[in-house]
Amino acid sequence: MIKRVSHLGVAVRDLDAAVRLYRDVFGLELERRWTSAGEGMEAAAFRVGDLEIELMQPLDDSSPVGRFIARRGEGLHHVAYAVDDVAGALQAVEEAGVEVIDRTPRPGGEGKTLIGFLHPKSVHGVLTELEQDAGLG
Amino acid sequence: MIKRVSHLGVAVRDLDAAVRLYRDVFGLELERRWTSAGEGMEAAAFRVGDLEIELMQPLDDSSPVGRFIARRGEGLHHVAYAVDDVAGALQAVEEAGVEVIDRTPRPGGEGKTLIGFLHPKSVHGVLTELEQDAGLG
Repeated sequence: MIKRVSHLGVAVRDLDAAVRLYRDVFGLELERRWTSAGEGMEAAAFRVGDLEIELMQPLDDSSPVGRFIARRGEGLHHVAYAVDDVAGALQAVEEAGVEVIDRTPRPGGEGKTLIGFLHPKSVHGVLTELEQDAGLG
Repeated sequence: MIKRVSHLGVAVRDLDAAVRLYRDVFGLELERRWTSAGEGMEAAAFRVGDLEIELMQPLDDSSPVGRFIARRGEGLHHVAYAVDDVAGALQAVEEAGVEVIDRTPRPGGEGKTLIGFLHPKSVHGVLTELEQDAGLG
């Protein structure tokens, strides 16, 4: 079902400072930076091998990333896996007893992907995203 | 400095249950399973693309992973990056103002690697490991 890790999401308070660390100290390549009003965050993605590190700064405290930081502080937020068929994968994991946040796929990645989240309580505390290239890019 | 993500560490309470989820539901390949008395954990590693997901169950509550779970619960614990020269990388990040846990490399990965950890407070809450193949395998 899972092919590879697509990206790793990290919640940060100060995106500019985090970008400086990953770019200037770790020497990683900044691929893109964007704001998602829908998700309530500003983000920056770095390419590392065949995955991306996605740094996410909340636009306000009531956004999902803002609530995460209020509860747990900055840090690793979620892991996203690439799958061929996210609808089929969501159905398969649900049938196996995993609680899903999204029962059917929704658009992600600025509309270029189809995604669905699994509930962390069913994945040993890991907020887990399944992601399928929507074939639009 | 950083070439790729080497592995992703996940703290779990029940390794057998976590192995069943990642192997039987997610369909990932279990590469190996081992006990590290020194680190106070039992662990299992799954291959996913060019990295590993490392599930870690503490042997007791006073181990590093046991203390992590007591404080934060199960979940994403650390990210490890492959570097060519861990000694040089530790020195470079420290000179850039990053607080390191290990100022000099120590053996990791059952003696097959040299590793050093960066303090999460300097990496936006992410416990970060740098790892160099020791050329012994």
